[in-house]
Amino acid sequence: MEKAVVLVLVSGGVDSTTLLHYVVKELGRDVKALTILYGQKHSKEIECSTYQCNLLGVPFEIIDLSLLAPYFSSSSLVGKEEVPNVVEVMGDPQPSTYVPNRNMLFLALAAAYAENLGIQEVYYGAQKHDLYGYWDTTPQFLQALNDVFSLNRKNGIQILAPFVDYTKTDVVRKGLELGVDYAHTWSDYFGREKASRHSATSAERLKAFAELGIEDPLEYEDD
Amino acid sequence: MEKAVVLVLVSGGVDSTTLLHYVVKELGRDVKALTILYGQKHSKEIECSTYQCNLLGVPFEIIDLSLLAPYFSSSSLVGKEEVPNVVEVMGDPQPSTYVPNRNMLFLALAAAYAENLGIQEVYYGAQKHDLYGYWDTTPQFLQALNDVFSLNRKNGIQILAPFVDYTKTDVVRKGLELGVDYAHTWSDYFGREKASRHSATSAERLKAFAELGIEDPLEYEDD
Repeated sequence: MEKAVVLVLVSGGVDSTTLLHYVVKELGRDVKALTILYGQKHSKEIECSTYQCNLLGVPFEIIDLSLLAPYFSSSSLVGKEEVPNVVEVMGDPQPSTYVPNRNMLFLALAAAYAENLGIQEVYYGAQKHDLYGYWDTTPQFLQALNDVFSLNRKNGIQILAPFVDYTKTDVVRKGLELGVDYAHTWSDYFGREKASRHSATSAERLKAFAELGIEDPLEYEDD
Repeated sequence: MEKAVVLVLVSGGVDSTTLLHYVVKELGRDVKALTILYGQKHSKEIECSTYQCNLLGVPFEIIDLSLLAPYFSSSSLVGKEEVPNVVEVMGDPQPSTYVPNRNMLFLALAAAYAENLGIQEVYYGAQKHDLYGYWDTTPQFLQALNDVFSLNRKNGIQILAPFVDYTKTDVVRKGLELGVDYAHTWSDYFGREKASRHSATSAERLKAFAELGIEDPLEYEDD
């Protein structure tokens, strides 16, 4: 019998890249990857997710929802207010990098995409955010979303987030075990040629590497 | 104090048109309308929703997600299998006119749109489907979706579907009370110049008018 294919949502960042390697290498699943664009400030994410999918021989699809960018007010998007640095978002329960309901929208689209192909499992790189407080990456959010999908009478989709209780440090530790090359991941919101050590997401990532006593292989503009 | 604006999802069909009139006239709310396109077989819906919004002086926005059509296998979309007639879908718990997870996707997008504008209530024209069995128009579906939104720590959105327990006949009765001109609504999936009495959705609508002893004012190609 053919192995059932699962869908992995990838963004090119640390979490979803580690998840992709985890689902392929540790879970041994047959994977298809999906990247959803929504008008981010740069194309580094797409370069990184393409690199990682090619490396693993995973077929992937890119759906470009950039036309929705005007409807999303978030500082992580093109043309909006300045992206805050780490000091400004720490402890904020809904920082300006939050994109209104983006995660549910992406998961609803991923579920539609999966249901259309007869795929039942969608893997999602949510992790335990220790610096921020996004409501839509929590175990409660994912459980509530799966409660919605469980009502589908024919094609119940399940969202799986194996890292939902991992800190960023746990994620990076797992990825290093799996041989992930983090030089080909992208975590910065600023959209310049190189990542800045001072963007909120870079700071979180650097902290994870520091806690593991390892150098982040990504080249930063501040080096 | 300024009245809070609410969002109404309109498609140009009987249910959402009636809902639009209901929210404006009976509830007296300040309304903004949103139409989401996804590659339907014709543009009659957009003509009808534009007409109804203009009539009521309701500002509206159209978001065109037609680029997603290839990812939705449904006979109601362009280029896919033939749209079934009413005999073929009656009693089917998930007929071929079902569009995989479209409703959740639309409601997630409507919620994102609303949250971005600071709107808290989204009205949705779900009704009690007596002929079909879509899982994603039921009170259970809407409750489960609201359970997700209730987790948002700052901007909880609520999906309201006042017709969720109405039959199509109840909806049309309510609309006639409110003076809705159903000549400017569109319910047919076939995508020809005029609607056919034999499309599944037209048949449901015609049944509602028949039960009320009233002529459907829409001109049908079979007349």
